[in-house]
Amino acid sequence: MTETAPRPTLEAVAERAGVSRATVSRVVNGAHGVREALAERVRRAVEELGYVPNQAARSLVTKRHHAVAVVAAEPETRVFADPYFAQQLRGISRELTAHDNQLVLLLTEGREDHARVGRYLAGGHVDGALVFSLHLDDPLPGLVRRAGVPTVFGGRPGWDDGRDGVVYVDSDNRGGARAAVRHLAGLGRTRIAHITGPLDQTSAADRLAGFRDLRADVDPELIERGDFTSGGGERAMRKLLDRCPDLDAVFAANDLTAAGALRALRQRGRRVPDDVAVVGFDDMLPVAEQTDPPLTTIRQDIEEMGRLMARLLLRGLDRPADGEETSAAAAATPSGVVLPTTLVRRASA
Amino acid sequence: MTETAPRPTLEAVAERAGVSRATVSRVVNGAHGVREALAERVRRAVEELGYVPNQAARSLVTKRHHAVAVVAAEPETRVFADPYFAQQLRGISRELTAHDNQLVLLLTEGREDHARVGRYLAGGHVDGALVFSLHLDDPLPGLVRRAGVPTVFGGRPGWDDGRDGVVYVDSDNRGGARAAVRHLAGLGRTRIAHITGPLDQTSAADRLAGFRDLRADVDPELIERGDFTSGGGERAMRKLLDRCPDLDAVFAANDLTAAGALRALRQRGRRVPDDVAVVGFDDMLPVAEQTDPPLTTIRQDIEEMGRLMARLLLRGLDRPADGEETSAAAAATPSGVVLPTTLVRRASA
Repeated sequence: MTETAPRPTLEAVAERAGVSRATVSRVVNGAHGVREALAERVRRAVEELGYVPNQAARSLVTKRHHAVAVVAAEPETRVFADPYFAQQLRGISRELTAHDNQLVLLLTEGREDHARVGRYLAGGHVDGALVFSLHLDDPLPGLVRRAGVPTVFGGRPGWDDGRDGVVYVDSDNRGGARAAVRHLAGLGRTRIAHITGPLDQTSAADRLAGFRDLRADVDPELIERGDFTSGGGERAMRKLLDRCPDLDAVFAANDLTAAGALRALRQRGRRVPDDVAVVGFDDMLPVAEQTDPPLTTIRQDIEEMGRLMARLLLRGLDRPADGEETSAAAAATPSGVVLPTTLVRRASA
Repeated sequence: MTETAPRPTLEAVAERAGVSRATVSRVVNGAHGVREALAERVRRAVEELGYVPNQAARSLVTKRHHAVAVVAAEPETRVFADPYFAQQLRGISRELTAHDNQLVLLLTEGREDHARVGRYLAGGHVDGALVFSLHLDDPLPGLVRRAGVPTVFGGRPGWDDGRDGVVYVDSDNRGGARAAVRHLAGLGRTRIAHITGPLDQTSAADRLAGFRDLRADVDPELIERGDFTSGGGERAMRKLLDRCPDLDAVFAANDLTAAGALRALRQRGRRVPDDVAVVGFDDMLPVAEQTDPPLTTIRQDIEEMGRLMARLLLRGLDRPADGEETSAAAAATPSGVVLPTTLVRRASA
């Protein structure tokens, strides 16, 4: 282990600055009512001695750690491979940093580690949590709830019954899907197929619902299940072409799915967009720009989602505590914030 | 905020199990001396009530949080874009998880956030830290030291004077560089050039030292500075070809640099390996396999480095504390652990 220099104490700072312990404490904790000249002396002593306030003691006063946990219900390998998550995390990191809060990313190898995450959250190390919980049967939200820390979710939780004050940030998946179908219909397409995502995720379910909103009488043969991967999109597209050789458009549940569908269409000799028009979802770069042809898609502002999650959490934390802190905050906070999506037109539709 | 269910207390568990608070506390903290039948009743009550032990209180007894921080002296965007870091993190995550320790990744936007990281480390939220500090002038190591938590570094710290018990894990950069040069000389090459990495990083400095070990009388014109990027490698290669058109081999300080050098050689009409043989460093996949031609390189086991960092830290933490914990651990722990590298032969040399 690194041999550590003895840590300078509050007393040492007080002695160096020639003030009382209480004065040092007030300055360090950002309290008002200390003369500027005195405060300056304390700050200089803090700097000279390299004093680090004891956060645990400090948080007894401020009741804040100025740290926020980010938890993804996916194994570490998936988290690091997922450009979508990286973008959300970028937004979160910028917002937390702008408010001098430490981003604490809690990584796991799998679901069996979620209980440990729950213990860490309950242990008084963070002020709140931002949780990405994508699957309907996920135990993580329950563990977070039991940990008793204020939480904002990324994506509409599937188990949200709308009554219990769950706060989440989501994209308008349903409206975006409608925009995709409207665009394809506007091109004169009449046999529009849909490749779904995994339907245990609300984003996939909502995109299917948006598709159905405008195609209430759709031939069920025109809907095929995918899994948000390009391999899944390729397989689904082949099945659709076998079943419905007359289809003239596809709305794919995300850009990776669309990339796979484009491959299958090329293999079968269908021209895009002349024979079959294709629209994706996400505007995930560089994928959406590098498909052949480049992909018309529905853009969601992923980084802004992350920023907004952090902002909602911090806003809740900054409310005065009154013993009923989290409930009071819940009552005053909107439960779901849904960001708009936009159609980005490239060559595929 | 999420409205939270009231957290079940230790008292509630004791009542449910029909035992004393002390008994619940002993079971929860893994102490011995509780009859198995009683312990089983407590565990059942814990489960039924969804009791989460207060980690802060628990760690007063065990003096452990079972949480380890990982800190990279790079902004969040770099951390997430860097496959090298992702691999080290994979090793760390597996090792910590195998020992039921929570991985706490502390992300920052830039150096101005390092003081906040120091405060979090000092705040009693983790048992130790794994720190990647790559640059000579980095303030992070000093902040970590002042925070007073046991630390293991990834890569040899440039400021390590060998006396202060700094523990680090590194690859044999110098030996690997010698293996690269030996391989090129073995192919009969005599005008061997070197494109360095950024020399404020010890890995780059050590690779240059290994090159010089075997080319003591090297023509200084055959050494050109790069920056571990492919663009830097391309620029350096062009300069080398301008200065020394007769060069017949290049040892590039990493695989990205080598990929750039290969591009420059192709642009100038040099055949690889016939005219110029090229060796990289890292065996970073998929880069090393996808260059044209595929890259002969020096492999380091990056995931194992991460695993070993975690193992050394946990081993230090598990030693009995005796008031001189960190110093005692330092005395008994090797200060630097250097992992071997191996030559991987593909087509470029």
